[in-house]
Amino acid sequence: MVVKVYGPLCAATKRVLVCLIEKEVEFETVHVDITKGEQKSPEYLKLQPFGVLPVIQDGDYTLYESRAIMRYYAEKYKSQGVELLGKTIEERGLVEEWLDVEATNFHPPIYNLAIQLMFSPMVGITPNPKLIEESEAKLESVLNIYEERLSKSKYLAGDFFSLADISHLPFLDYLVNYMGKEYMVKDRKHVSAWWGDISSKPSWKKVIQLYKPPI
Amino acid sequence: MVVKVYGPLCAATKRVLVCLIEKEVEFETVHVDITKGEQKSPEYLKLQPFGVLPVIQDGDYTLYESRAIMRYYAEKYKSQGVELLGKTIEERGLVEEWLDVEATNFHPPIYNLAIQLMFSPMVGITPNPKLIEESEAKLESVLNIYEERLSKSKYLAGDFFSLADISHLPFLDYLVNYMGKEYMVKDRKHVSAWWGDISSKPSWKKVIQLYKPPI
Repeated sequence: MVVKVYGPLCAATKRVLVCLIEKEVEFETVHVDITKGEQKSPEYLKLQPFGVLPVIQDGDYTLYESRAIMRYYAEKYKSQGVELLGKTIEERGLVEEWLDVEATNFHPPIYNLAIQLMFSPMVGITPNPKLIEESEAKLESVLNIYEERLSKSKYLAGDFFSLADISHLPFLDYLVNYMGKEYMVKDRKHVSAWWGDISSKPSWKKVIQLYKPPI
Repeated sequence: MVVKVYGPLCAATKRVLVCLIEKEVEFETVHVDITKGEQKSPEYLKLQPFGVLPVIQDGDYTLYESRAIMRYYAEKYKSQGVELLGKTIEERGLVEEWLDVEATNFHPPIYNLAIQLMFSPMVGITPNPKLIEESEAKLESVLNIYEERLSKSKYLAGDFFSLADISHLPFLDYLVNYMGKEYMVKDRKHVSAWWGDISSKPSWKKVIQLYKPPI
């Protein structure tokens, strides 16, 4: 059964696609045109009632929330492809810790920056300088903690690549390549080395080649 | 080895405590006085670099992020106490989906409401009516989706109690019992029945009896 992934152009969906490639799971994508509001259509809302991307269908199993979908496939195909949850329960605990740090500390300020610096200009909305300044300051302090963490281990959860790293790829790509904020990564030696490593993974390169950001 | 849990009075920590009780794991608590800023002390920051609660120590294993800690103990003691991750990988996928819905859809607006309606008045800050109105509207639309979901299954991830339900307890308690917004739950038949069920669990009753909110 081929996994059907909705909305491959969306940043959150790219997490799922990288995970599926690393786990050697076959998938097909279904385009959802958010410029036409297709994510709010009645058919789409039947699959994802919050009207956001992504959602997957795997036979009669439907699942949404990108980080939950990654966890599902990393566990379902534990012995296939690259191990992405760590080898022990303690390692998995740390993967979960950094997945949650990404969702609750890293994502909110970087998402606000993406809205202000990438998406508002696209639709003719003037960016809000105060919100940009506040979000950048918050992200700076988060990245300072990442710098300290990554001075002690090669990846976020330890010396192994995991879902926690994958989860950061799409918005770090926006920050470095679309927002003119590359210095926030480059000025931090260990964050920069980590970004260089994870953004060179063939799975990530394939995803951005096939499904170019933004949107 | 008794698990050491820091900051039992904090809402996020209460998730962890309910989980430990349900899993029959012995713990002791360490008070962190946030009115004195102890969560930003050098000693605390060594355990939790973001300076927020909770964090646990289990022998020489340290873990933070409340939802990650719950997952760790629910998996570590899978066959002890109440099963909180579902019985199959597919059930666990849905637990993860609703844990992430809680973290990314439910938590931001209810957290803003708590700040405005509970914590700002405590420290003499005038609440922001526009932010209250916007947060309440967002939470209403989230709870409408919960109402639909809970019309089809007894709990969020299916007909079984899980971490996804536990994760909602502390802030729903604030909403119902401390913010004067009980109607947001009571006006929704299925959400109300679900809240009645999960807030009657002996584990939750024990936690709020021992560690009274707020803060």
